[in-house]
Parts: sequence; C-alpha cells; structure tokens
Amino acid sequence: MKTCEIISVGTELLLGDIINTDAAYISKRLADIGVPLYRQSVVGDNAERLRECLNSALMRSDIVIMTGGLGPTCDDITKVVTAELFSLPLEENKAVRCSIEKYFEDIGRTMTENNLSQAMIPKGADILKNNHGTAPGVLICGKIGGSDSEKTVIMLPGPPKELEPMFEESVMPRLEAMSPNVFFSLNLHLYGIGESAAESILRPIMEESTNPTVAPYACEAEVRIRITAKGDSRAECVKLCYSMAQKIRGGEAGEYIFAESTSDGDYSETMVRRAIDLLREKKLTVGTAESCTAGMISSRIADIPGSSDVLCGGIVSYSNEVKINVLGVQADIIEKFGAVSEQCASAMAEGARRILGCDIAVSVTGIAGPSGGTPEKPVGTVCFGISDAAGTETETRHFGSLSDRGKIRRLTTSTALMKIIERISTKK
Amino acid sequence: MKTCEIISVGTELLLGDIINTDAAYISKRLADIGVPLYRQSVVGDNAERLRECLNSALMRSDIVIMTGGLGPTCDDITKVVTAELFSLPLEENKAVRCSIEKYFEDIGRTMTENNLSQAMIPKGADILKNNHGTAPGVLICGKIGGSDSEKTVIMLPGPPKELEPMFEESVMPRLEAMSPNVFFSLNLHLYGIGESAAESILRPIMEESTNPTVAPYACEAEVRIRITAKGDSRAECVKLCYSMAQKIRGGEAGEYIFAESTSDGDYSETMVRRAIDLLREKKLTVGTAESCTAGMISSRIADIPGSSDVLCGGIVSYSNEVKINVLGVQADIIEKFGAVSEQCASAMAEGARRILGCDIAVSVTGIAGPSGGTPEKPVGTVCFGISDAAGTETETRHFGSLSDRGKIRRLTTSTALMKIIERISTKK
Repeated sequence: MKTCEIISVGTELLLGDIINTDAAYISKRLADIGVPLYRQSVVGDNAERLRECLNSALMRSDIVIMTGGLGPTCDDITKVVTAELFSLPLEENKAVRCSIEKYFEDIGRTMTENNLSQAMIPKGADILKNNHGTAPGVLICGKIGGSDSEKTVIMLPGPPKELEPMFEESVMPRLEAMSPNVFFSLNLHLYGIGESAAESILRPIMEESTNPTVAPYACEAEVRIRITAKGDSRAECVKLCYSMAQKIRGGEAGEYIFAESTSDGDYSETMVRRAIDLLREKKLTVGTAESCTAGMISSRIADIPGSSDVLCGGIVSYSNEVKINVLGVQADIIEKFGAVSEQCASAMAEGARRILGCDIAVSVTGIAGPSGGTPEKPVGTVCFGISDAAGTETETRHFGSLSDRGKIRRLTTSTALMKIIERISTKK
Repeated sequence: MKTCEIISVGTELLLGDIINTDAAYISKRLADIGVPLYRQSVVGDNAERLRECLNSALMRSDIVIMTGGLGPTCDDITKVVTAELFSLPLEENKAVRCSIEKYFEDIGRTMTENNLSQAMIPKGADILKNNHGTAPGVLICGKIGGSDSEKTVIMLPGPPKELEPMFEESVMPRLEAMSPNVFFSLNLHLYGIGESAAESILRPIMEESTNPTVAPYACEAEVRIRITAKGDSRAECVKLCYSMAQKIRGGEAGEYIFAESTSDGDYSETMVRRAIDLLREKKLTVGTAESCTAGMISSRIADIPGSSDVLCGGIVSYSNEVKINVLGVQADIIEKFGAVSEQCASAMAEGARRILGCDIAVSVTGIAGPSGGTPEKPVGTVCFGISDAAGTETETRHFGSLSDRGKIRRLTTSTALMKIIERISTKK
C-alpha cells in the first residue's frame, strides 16, 4: 500500500490566523479508504524551507498532498518549488488562462497581471479542475533526484470551499484506483443521545466486529455511527454494511436513529435534508418564527438547493414589537409569561402559520447569552413551538450555561429541525 | 532570536478524528510575542517516526513545543522518546505521584497502575504544573547528539482545556523572557477589492517597509491588510503601525477601507460589528427582507451579543406569496420584472421598513443556484434594496457562476451588511 503525507503551505497557518481544517479533512478521507498517512506538516511561504520539507517527505512517502500557496500573489510558491524538485519547467496553460479570464469577466472585476501566474503549470502535469475558484489543482507523477521510485505530488488550493469538492471529484477517484481494496461506509445519524452513551451501548458490537468496523463520532447536536466495510467489490461491502445497520437498528440504539447516509453521498446536513424530504413526501410547506436564532433555521433549510419546494419563508421576531405587531402575539402574554415562554412560542408558531400561509410552522424563543439569564430562566433556556392543522405543541429545553452563544443558537436550530421531522414522522 | 517548531503527537490527528487547534493556538501566541515559528508537524503514536521527526526539528530549531502523547496508556510515548534523545533516564517524581493520587481521590475514582506512568519524568527536567488534568508538562533544556547548541523541548498535554492554561501560566513567561522585542499588529479591513488588486496597489509600500511589515490576507468578501511593528515598547510599535495606516489610508487603497482592528481585539466579524457600531452611534434600528439568503443577514447580526439594541427583526420572503402577502410587494411588479429585480428589491425593503417599524431596511433577492439561472439573469445575480426615511436605493450585483450556492449567499450577506455601513456612513 502506498504511503502518504500532507504538507500545508501558508504563513497564516504558522501565525495561527487560521486552523488547519484542510489537513483534518484530507486525513479523514484517507482513513476512509485505508491509505496510511504518516505525517502532516505546515511550512510558511518560504521557498527554501518548503523545498526541504517536500524533499524529505518524498524520501519517506509515495504520495504527498500539498494544500495552499496556489494563489496569485508572489508569496504563492507551491508550484514553483515542486516543479523545480521534479526538474520541470512552468508553462502557461491556455485553457486555464481562459477560465481565469472568464471568471473575472463574470464577476465584473478587472483581472490584474499577477492573476495569470495561476495559469502557469509544470510541464506534463495533470490539471485538477477547480469549480469554485481560479486556482486549478495540479498533479505531478515522476521521479526526483535521490529516489528511484515513482512519486506523486498533488497540489490543491487552501480554501476549504475549493479544496473539498476538488478532493472528492478529482483526488478520491485516483487514490481509490491505487488501493487494492474497495471501501464503503454507511452512516447512521442519531439524535437525543451522547457519544459516550452511544459507545457504551455499541461496545459489544464494536469489539466483535472487524469487517465492517463500527465507530461513533460526536457531531454538534447529533452522533454519527460509521459502519465501514472493506472488500473486493462494492456490492460485497454494501451488503456487509446494511446487514450491520439492521443489527444496530434492532438494538437499543435503534430508537435514536433519524436518518442514514452513505459515503458516496453528502452526509453533511443530513438532518435538514431529512426534514425537507419528509415535507416533500407529504406535500407540506414549512415556515418559521425565530427569535434567538434570528433566521438560522430558515437559512439552514435554504442551504439545500431546491428547498423552495417546501420553504415559504419566516418571520425573524427579534424585538417584542415584531412578535406583537407582525406575528400577532398578544402583548399580555409577553407581559405575564415573558418573551421566553411556551405561551409566547405557541403564539409565535400559530402567528407564523397564519401569516406565511404554510402547513407547518416552527417557532423558537430563548436566551442565547452571554447576558439576559435569570435564576428561573438561565442562559441556554429555549422554548419551542410547532403548529399545524392538528394543533400546536410546545416544549422548553435547556442547552446549558456552559455552551456559548453560537453553540446555543446552533443546537436550537437542530432541535427545531428535529421538531419538524418528529411532527411529520408521527403523522400517518 | 531563537526559532521554534511545534510537533503534535497523536494517531487521532492523522486519522482526521480531531482538528489540530492546539497548533493554531500556540502559533498565535508565538506570533504575538514575535517568536519565529518555522514548522508544525503531526506524527502518530509511533516511537520510531516521532524520534525522526523530533531529531530533525532539533537540528533546525532552538525550541520544540510538543503536544499530546502524555497520557497514561502505552501509546503515549512523548516523554520516553524525548528522554532517550537527550540521554536522560526517566525517574518517578514523588510530588507528581502524590498529585495524581490526590486527583483520583478527589473525583472518587480508582487509580489504575498505568496512571502512575504520568509521574515518570526525565531526570533534571522542569515540571510544568497542570491544574486541569493529571499529566504534568515537562521542559527539558540540554544538548543532543549531533548538535552543539543548547536546545529546549517543552511537552504539553493535548486536550485544549489543559494545554491552554498551562501555556499561559508556565510557557509564555519563559518565552517572553527569551524575546528581546515587543510586537503589535493593526488590521485594515477592505471591501470591494480583491487580494491581488490590493497587493498590486500596496506593492511599493510592502517592498520598502521592513518595520512595520505590511501584508494582505484574503478573507471571503473582504481583504485584510496586516501591519505589524517590532520595537522596544508597545507605545513605539503602536505609533509605527498607526503612522503606516495613515499612509495607506491616504493612498489608492484608502477608499476600500471600512474598518480597522488591533491584534489585542477580536478581528473576526469586523464587518457586522462595524455595522452594529454605526447603527448604535446614530441610534438607528435595522430590519431585513431576505429571499435567497433566507435569514442569513439577520442571523449574522444576531451573532454579536447585544445586537438586540439595533436589530428589530426580518421577513424571510422565500416564496412569492410571502413577498406579496407579508411584504406587500405588488403582484404585477413580480409579473412584469420578476422576483429577482431591482423593482422587487425596492418594494421588499420598503415593505420591511413599514412592517417591522425599523429605521433602515435592507433587502436581497437573487439566484443562488445551482439551477434557476437564465441568460439575462445568470446564477449569482442578486438585487439589493436599502430604504430609510431619505428614500430607497437599489443595485444589482453578479457574484459569478463559479461561486457555489453557499458562497453566493455568504457574499450576498456581506454585501448587504456593507450597504448598511455605506448608507449610515454617508449620513451626516
């Protein structure tokens, strides 16, 4: 099996201005397909130090994946240093030049001369298309001085929004082709249980299983159980994974599972995708009334292309005036019970359903902090309402004073999405 | 000046199960006090590979800070490998042993024998107290084979909750004592110009300046110019930075600057903070009417604690019905010009201002893709409206077909925030 290293290039990483999420992303994907990763390195925008780092990585490993340093400015040195090590000249690539020119035309900005440095490609290298930016990825395969065996260097742009799709579209298929085995993963998504509790339940299965393997991962607001099978064919792996999934669904963990996803598909945003699928299936529209989340719930639904089928809109009622004047919450409800109360959440959800003309409305009103908490309603207290033709239900949840403002708002958003899923799932 | 490297030890980092936030944290703190950091490395729990990595780091640099691998299990190898390299035996430290025993007594759990491996310390090493866990930090100062100069290795536990306080309490004072200089950075935040265009404009200043240094960094929707000065006192550095900032503000880049921030403060979310500050200063309230962003703008304002001073709320008018029935957009505007039109954006902003009762309303309606584009209105076309007592203005922007749905929506959100900033800034 070929071994791999990652080198991330960028002074901003060495200054601690950004966190190296690229390395974690790539590492995870390499682990998914069983490619052994021996080292991650970070160097600054310094040609000499990058050369030393890349050279020793290539002495140790077969494949080096580099991220960053492909931008248009003079401190973007990744291609220059790598081409030099492989003794390849840089040449202007016409197709890349055209696509850069088109990009600037599209956005109506003037292209400066230095942008064209992104069209300079080491001779004979493969170009990895970038559908989300101007810097293409580059793949070089060949020998360097001091080593007899063939080495592969893959260069990718640093911004995760560009790197991640390029990695999936262009790098994964090439790496999978190098691997003697086929891998397949199935994720079960759980809500309402913590990672350690999930691990305790699954421990016997985890210990007795070697193929497929079973491992829990904690994500915010959900736990993911990843089932990964290795085999000679995809069909064999798929069968192994689904048979294990059936076993887990039949056990104690089963009641917490709200969705499943596969390693081929997008397993981010499974919760919101599940809510949209259910709404679409039942031909229902949804609307929101948001106080502390201030638009996060509707925005997260709209993250998914095509969500306009099911999303009418929402009312962000951050002030009490908007709760009263737009949503029609009675002033004395707020006076008597407070804006953070189940009574207010109930009136908000009903108001949203009436005003937006949607089938189901979800509402949230809470204290995201850091200030505004009281002994009766501490920071992290959130009231939920959900309303449809069958009536309105409310619940109060506590996301804890240890969570910060951002986390409380994100957990509130996920819980609101789960309210939609649960409401529709129980409808016959 | 002594140079530094960071080595993080842990197979979980190489599997992508955790993100290396420790390295980013330490890097930022080193940059704050001007310690040059040349490399970050990550290796797994493998003695041979760690030895090679540590040895070459010590050949290049004076100080190596290691994180992780100090736990009680057999794959925690950091101390063993380091002690070996410095030819030091490991000895049980009585004080550390007592504190581990006391820790388990306190939490009422049984201590297992392997926990005592954490009391094994290389002979003559300094112990760095851990107030948040059982693994103490270790500092070794000495010579290793193959190098004549004195080297320092600092070993810290991996969990950020333990590492960060130890770094502040025990490591920073030692590093500051080694540094002859004080550093200070000032950031200028630019909107409406790309990184490469900013670099072209600033190139003469960047080339002639050594103290302070000037460097542009691209962030989504903005460019940050960082000015960093080195000197004997903070006052001297502050003076150097502000005098450079004045020079840049007076030049071609000046018109793009919308905010500044310092290295002491929080420079994330500068754009939304600037909008909130301006609103508060002029005692104005704001509201939104959002179609394609579906709540992102109001949510981003609510990200900032205390924004309830200025944010009334918003209408997420994802469907045409909500635009017509809630915002009061005339049906024939949508019929004649389309929902993505300046006419519709104008009516949305005016409707939001009326319904929400706010002083300023910003509206957006656009095509976030991936589908829905036409030759006249391609994906990435967004119409903006901004309305206050003085009237309503509109503009159409194109964010390019290369941007994905998420990026188009985030750029739309930033542009809407800039519309608020610009509208208030031009008010006398």
